[in-house]
Amino acid sequence: MATFNVELRRVVDDSYEIETGFCLQEKLVEDIKNSLVGNITKFAVVTDSIVKELYADDIAARLRSEGYTADVFSFEAGETSKTRATKEFVEDSMLEKGYRRDCCIIAVGGGVVTDLAGFVAGTFGRGVPFINYATTLLAAADASVGGKTAVDTPLATNLIGLFNQPRKVYIDIAAWKTLPERQLRSGLAETVKHACIKSRELFDYLDGHMDEILRIDKTACEHIAGENCAIKYSVVMKDERESGLREILNLGHTVGRAIETVSGYRLLHGEALSIGLAAEVKLAKRLGYMTDEECEKVVSLLGKAGLPVSIPDYIDREQLVAKLYTDKKVKNGQLRFVVQKGIGDVVEFSEGVFAVKISEDIAREIISEM
Amino acid sequence: MATFNVELRRVVDDSYEIETGFCLQEKLVEDIKNSLVGNITKFAVVTDSIVKELYADDIAARLRSEGYTADVFSFEAGETSKTRATKEFVEDSMLEKGYRRDCCIIAVGGGVVTDLAGFVAGTFGRGVPFINYATTLLAAADASVGGKTAVDTPLATNLIGLFNQPRKVYIDIAAWKTLPERQLRSGLAETVKHACIKSRELFDYLDGHMDEILRIDKTACEHIAGENCAIKYSVVMKDERESGLREILNLGHTVGRAIETVSGYRLLHGEALSIGLAAEVKLAKRLGYMTDEECEKVVSLLGKAGLPVSIPDYIDREQLVAKLYTDKKVKNGQLRFVVQKGIGDVVEFSEGVFAVKISEDIAREIISEM
Repeated sequence: MATFNVELRRVVDDSYEIETGFCLQEKLVEDIKNSLVGNITKFAVVTDSIVKELYADDIAARLRSEGYTADVFSFEAGETSKTRATKEFVEDSMLEKGYRRDCCIIAVGGGVVTDLAGFVAGTFGRGVPFINYATTLLAAADASVGGKTAVDTPLATNLIGLFNQPRKVYIDIAAWKTLPERQLRSGLAETVKHACIKSRELFDYLDGHMDEILRIDKTACEHIAGENCAIKYSVVMKDERESGLREILNLGHTVGRAIETVSGYRLLHGEALSIGLAAEVKLAKRLGYMTDEECEKVVSLLGKAGLPVSIPDYIDREQLVAKLYTDKKVKNGQLRFVVQKGIGDVVEFSEGVFAVKISEDIAREIISEM
Repeated sequence: MATFNVELRRVVDDSYEIETGFCLQEKLVEDIKNSLVGNITKFAVVTDSIVKELYADDIAARLRSEGYTADVFSFEAGETSKTRATKEFVEDSMLEKGYRRDCCIIAVGGGVVTDLAGFVAGTFGRGVPFINYATTLLAAADASVGGKTAVDTPLATNLIGLFNQPRKVYIDIAAWKTLPERQLRSGLAETVKHACIKSRELFDYLDGHMDEILRIDKTACEHIAGENCAIKYSVVMKDERESGLREILNLGHTVGRAIETVSGYRLLHGEALSIGLAAEVKLAKRLGYMTDEECEKVVSLLGKAGLPVSIPDYIDREQLVAKLYTDKKVKNGQLRFVVQKGIGDVVEFSEGVFAVKISEDIAREIISEM
């Protein structure tokens, strides 16, 4: 018997910059020319069928006109595309076009595109660099900080993926104007969630400026984009691997993700999350951590954003309860929930523990009330 | 326009231990009881249809008898199983059985199993810990150090995967006795490669002790298992991300991987690699880095190990030449080869550059001579 020690202790620096502004295509190309990803000359622009013509084709053309190789790889828009099959399709398309390890992926689109493309980048040739060009508010809130990438499977959402940090994130607020109103409203759910867990100030700002936000006022949108980054960053920085604190970002997602799946993606992610947040305040109230008035304020803000706060009739309640068990926070077969405390805070149940076991009966009751 | 800096500089420690010996099943369970992977209680034992009954079922039973949850997830043995479809099958089977982020994967088997299971572990729930229990010489040489995991695609081998370090590696030499002789011989190819690139001493040891090795003599096998680790470690440590030096581990693989694919996996990985190594010495001789005598010594050692050194007739030479371009080392459409220098060394073409452009004509000529 012999042992051999493999010493792999080293410093890793995955730092990167998030740039928020209007129309950042030119800046992106400029940054690449200034060695954002070293001397790489091949760029796979990954996007969806909607964003392709709006942004991706243009970005690829700009890159080609600067002498780079750039191809657009596009898949059908929508959450149902966030699958291993789409990942495989993008990989095979890239391989067919001759892309190998010496390329960089540029994700251009919303949360589905950035989640999927970041995952592709993480496993293509065992990892190539990637850049996120976020065109939706949801992607700005979700994909800008945290490095979470994933696809869905029939049995659970976001369970197959990896942590992978982009080289840079661009948040193009001008792109929000191209969003259907329903998508824009859906994107606000993550921002409301950030306010609920961390910032009464942001909550009040959203409450007072919803009109400006919905008409894409530059100042208001830059403000919420910045607050999203700052809040998520403050959480993720303290807990990059999602062991404890980072679970607070799951507020509303236990029920939300389950509804999203059971709805067969008839509900957008933010819509499902909004219902999940409304369920969470009921839970928080029941556990004594929120007042009636605070609960109503949250539900009212979600309503102002035009988001649903009750479970649609077509959702089978029992199927929904069963689906809760596919949540990533489930441990030893027990449901676990993050619990909001007032507005702008969450409950820390013991040191570093931000999720608490909830019986199936309580979960069922809350769901039946909605 | 506003920018936000995400600072993600931190110390990562992926150090682990490789333990070599006879029958290490009990030691594995002992280590788990002693918190090898913390307080995890659920173990997904991933294996293939051959190793299942020989080792995996037994390991799972031992874990269950200690109060752990353990299930065996098995797929059909063979390189053709190293696909995204098999990865998906293992993931879905684990999800169905209720496995979530709070589990550990134990890969029990040869190189295909450890490559695939390590990849599954890297993306299951965005990463769960894994342990390699290597039952073949090839896995001992290949999977023990380096953290490379991957699957093959129709267009290229090992191009989809990631770097993922195991928590511990067990090299069970007793398991080599269960290998069909062809598999054992195949496994020796990586060891010969290690000798060729780094150690004249190991080369001479193999030359002088081939009989003992082939009859699984404990001392001889422990020696080569240890040397494999030491050589691979010395390379990988200096270049964890395969930017330069690590490419020397690809000696023989440019042609080898291509032959393996074109053969439709009629050739085992080690057999294909052996032919690749024989091709490489021809290339090295042609470029003036090896003498006739040195070339013959390498070819003779491969022969002693019972490995093929010429391309089978059923391989289409032109298809093989075309397939070379799917190699990971290809840059800007140019074939690149690692070149052996005498025995136990490789050519460093300029500082940190260990692969050189080779014209398609030269590659075709060498292939046609074999």
